[in-house]
Amino acid sequence: MAALPEFDRLRVVLVDTRNPLNIGAAARAMSNFGFRRLRVVNPYEVAFQSARSAVGAADLLASAEKFGSVTEAVADCSLVVGTVSVGPRDLQHTLQRLEAGARLIRDHIASGSCALLFGSEKFGLSNRDLSHCHWLMHIPTREAHASMNLGQAVAICLYELIRDAAAAVKRQAKSPASSAEMERITDTLLAALRASDYPKLNSSVSFHSAVRRMIRRFHMHTGDAEFFLGMLRQIVWKLEKKK
Amino acid sequence: MAALPEFDRLRVVLVDTRNPLNIGAAARAMSNFGFRRLRVVNPYEVAFQSARSAVGAADLLASAEKFGSVTEAVADCSLVVGTVSVGPRDLQHTLQRLEAGARLIRDHIASGSCALLFGSEKFGLSNRDLSHCHWLMHIPTREAHASMNLGQAVAICLYELIRDAAAAVKRQAKSPASSAEMERITDTLLAALRASDYPKLNSSVSFHSAVRRMIRRFHMHTGDAEFFLGMLRQIVWKLEKKK
Repeated sequence: MAALPEFDRLRVVLVDTRNPLNIGAAARAMSNFGFRRLRVVNPYEVAFQSARSAVGAADLLASAEKFGSVTEAVADCSLVVGTVSVGPRDLQHTLQRLEAGARLIRDHIASGSCALLFGSEKFGLSNRDLSHCHWLMHIPTREAHASMNLGQAVAICLYELIRDAAAAVKRQAKSPASSAEMERITDTLLAALRASDYPKLNSSVSFHSAVRRMIRRFHMHTGDAEFFLGMLRQIVWKLEKKK
Repeated sequence: MAALPEFDRLRVVLVDTRNPLNIGAAARAMSNFGFRRLRVVNPYEVAFQSARSAVGAADLLASAEKFGSVTEAVADCSLVVGTVSVGPRDLQHTLQRLEAGARLIRDHIASGSCALLFGSEKFGLSNRDLSHCHWLMHIPTREAHASMNLGQAVAICLYELIRDAAAAVKRQAKSPASSAEMERITDTLLAALRASDYPKLNSSVSFHSAVRRMIRRFHMHTGDAEFFLGMLRQIVWKLEKKK
């Protein structure tokens, strides 16, 4: 995938993050998916410094912006979305599942800027942080274990923003073996069985058909059919030589 | 979301993992999304032991199965899928984008078992590991920075398996304010402006309409309309008292 220009209208905002590994992981996922605008609010200073070694995301971390409050960090954004794990908290906001929320964010960043807020590892976003948000979004985890690792949560939200609903299943590009090729394989396998005194060979009139059907079920492509036929021919040659 | 019975037909297989944090992160994401069957192949022993403290996933890690080879780890699975980041490697397999590959996996685990393989942090899956796979899957990352953190990659693959394409955008449940409520607000705001000697009030015949339109654009719900009207009435009371 390629990073789209509108991705620069999304600001990933990490609030009160304590663990440098999580800042680094968030930055790495951003880089993986083509988002560049990282903002940190009141990070534990040591965490922010140590995070700068994140694999492949050093530039992104170096250009991260530091703010003293959520108010300042979201000031230039026309949409503010807070991420929450669904807990006992009595939410005052509309809560969107990630699949739906990401659609709203994608629509918004086509022309406007959006701040996507992630709270601290231990407490998430505070009610005060949430009061800056237009609506909230949650990743659909199990209720029994709703709370995600911060780096993983950032990665999943960004993935949902870049995923392509229309991505199609790829079929094997190689052309499937022709009936003639499969029939040659069937015949050669039967010859090998005959030369090996395979017991059922003459006991059932339908055996030949059963082998033919089995070979068709293998769904071989041309290259493999040729490869396999060569093996069988060698086996037949060896078996007949031994007689 | 709730874990579905077929989720137990998926085995997450971590091959040659070195970092205990990654084993723990994989286990945590599995638990978040309701997958329970973790298999580790040839893990660095210390890593496997240290990982057992992963947040909320201790049971899952305690029941993880350890294998000496990929052959053994996938023996009971009828579909084996390898995850790769798209690199320079010349792949011999069909490569599916995650969105499409996850559909194939979901279809398969409705009745059969599937092993989903993740390689080591440094080298990914080896060509030998890949030879066990029916096809390969990749997360659509940027080519310039394709390689993801292992724990994040596991989390994203599992999320794609549980995501609900039909999840709808939730509209605000609260009923929108009625025209009568909005008209009361409009009138009270105009009264406040009049009492404040707001200059434009008498200069433009269309000013009243402009205020009315603005109030409608606020898309208030009933509760907020009442809340806001109370504030305006208090302001008007104070302004008129001061005269």
